[in-house]
Amino acid sequence: MIAVDWGTSSFRAYRLDGMGRVLDLRAAPAGILTIAAGGFPAALETQLGDWLDDAPIVMSGMIGSRQGWREVPYVECPADVAAIARGLAPVEWGAGQRAWIVPGLSCRDVAGVPDVMRGEETQILGALEALPAGEAVICLPGTHSKWARVREGRILSFATAMTGEAFAVLRRHSILGRLMPEGSDGATDAGWFHAGLRRAGEPGGLLHHLFGVRSRGLFGEVPEAGLASYLSGMLIGREIADMAPPAGCPVHLIGAKDLVALYALALPESGREPIALDADCVARGLFRLAAHLSREAPHPTLSPQAGRGL
Amino acid sequence: MIAVDWGTSSFRAYRLDGMGRVLDLRAAPAGILTIAAGGFPAALETQLGDWLDDAPIVMSGMIGSRQGWREVPYVECPADVAAIARGLAPVEWGAGQRAWIVPGLSCRDVAGVPDVMRGEETQILGALEALPAGEAVICLPGTHSKWARVREGRILSFATAMTGEAFAVLRRHSILGRLMPEGSDGATDAGWFHAGLRRAGEPGGLLHHLFGVRSRGLFGEVPEAGLASYLSGMLIGREIADMAPPAGCPVHLIGAKDLVALYALALPESGREPIALDADCVARGLFRLAAHLSREAPHPTLSPQAGRGL
Repeated sequence: MIAVDWGTSSFRAYRLDGMGRVLDLRAAPAGILTIAAGGFPAALETQLGDWLDDAPIVMSGMIGSRQGWREVPYVECPADVAAIARGLAPVEWGAGQRAWIVPGLSCRDVAGVPDVMRGEETQILGALEALPAGEAVICLPGTHSKWARVREGRILSFATAMTGEAFAVLRRHSILGRLMPEGSDGATDAGWFHAGLRRAGEPGGLLHHLFGVRSRGLFGEVPEAGLASYLSGMLIGREIADMAPPAGCPVHLIGAKDLVALYALALPESGREPIALDADCVARGLFRLAAHLSREAPHPTLSPQAGRGL
Repeated sequence: MIAVDWGTSSFRAYRLDGMGRVLDLRAAPAGILTIAAGGFPAALETQLGDWLDDAPIVMSGMIGSRQGWREVPYVECPADVAAIARGLAPVEWGAGQRAWIVPGLSCRDVAGVPDVMRGEETQILGALEALPAGEAVICLPGTHSKWARVREGRILSFATAMTGEAFAVLRRHSILGRLMPEGSDGATDAGWFHAGLRRAGEPGGLLHHLFGVRSRGLFGEVPEAGLASYLSGMLIGREIADMAPPAGCPVHLIGAKDLVALYALALPESGREPIALDADCVARGLFRLAAHLSREAPHPTLSPQAGRGL
């Protein structure tokens, strides 16, 4: 099969064998925002090129959003691989060409406010088999960090924290960025990152702590080169305090290497053990969905026999 | 005397009689960011025009910052009018022309992190005489909201919350703004503003609540025209929860009419009584500083006798 992770800013495709092993990988900066309406079939054919044959194609990520190829309705939590596979939606083009788009997940928090993810559910599905029995917590740090509770193959619930985007807009567009040197766009100073983490645990609240990034910079108490790390630690520390399970419960991390490294630094500060999972679990999740779909709802493009010649 | 409130984006000057009554007022969009280095004397002369005679000139606001005419060191809290007057710094130009710049205030929060204000201390000084005896809380909402504790003519301490700027950068530069119609740049819908205030009191934390602005918008639970009001309420509600005194203690508000109106809506939601003070207290504060200076440290430009002819 061909597993496609098609997000806002990037495109990744994996060719998998019948056991789900990755035979080949292609990546391109061909995120959905770079593609005009109606341009998705051509873009997919360009990216997949000579991979295109009768192998089933399953795609996850923002390709299933309103800005993507087709808006696929969210599946509600709790959900397991079967429930998510039932939500797979086909897109067709050319002479009977077909691919499947993975639905996102939705849930409601204790106050009844909805939350959504699109793409991360597939990463979580790909990681679930590696988790111990019983309930576990998975964190996917990023622009919109996702924190999921899982148990026995089910995603029970999740919550989003806008940490990465808050950092980016404060860094680039607020007064806090003015004291930061060009190029300091993330946490690169472990000492000031830890100072930010500790700050998040002090009284006053985030909106007050943010202004302290400026005042401590003005007073020379945090060097300009350390301010971005201090801000990053403050936001990630706040996120962990608000989202993480009770101290003592480990947090499984999935994501880009540098972000996972930051969260792995941050979690022990508040007594949580970080456990890094395979960042490439998205291919495994897509494989599980494809396998499940072919079992539960046989379809020409997903059944090796009937699929020939399509 | 001439009282000047010279901020980042605006210039306001008041001509006051010997009792501190406002005789005349001039305002211009001639904030310090519009003026090139070295251009402050000419700008002041242009703005004051025929007001310029031997009357003393006292100026507060960002004119005393590193980006202003002269950087005036902060005075530490607790501070009363005398302590702040002792920090007045002269600037001179032309043939012995002179004006005074009010210092900002600094203090440290319980964790020892510094905080600063520049301009608001003068507004507070102007409002103090109108307050009841005993300790009181003053809130100056804005880009960087200031919350001050005052008692018997002294500013005991204060704290800043970056609420207004957080709203602005999230509105203009984050994904939250994408669903908001053009022109919805503030809280104009009281119902959704209140919904945001209530949201601030629910579990999950601000970084999670922020994402709910998007998800509730996507789900059509908050109409697009209500999203900016919902976001505003969420941020102001968080600020009040973090900064305000125990329920039951009134909060005195100083600021622009529309912002004061928003906070006056928000405070009762958490059991605080809002009391709006005169927004033009800056002229009164400058008058008190000028009077104090002329008593404590006589100077040609501030003593009617010696000042003639300067």
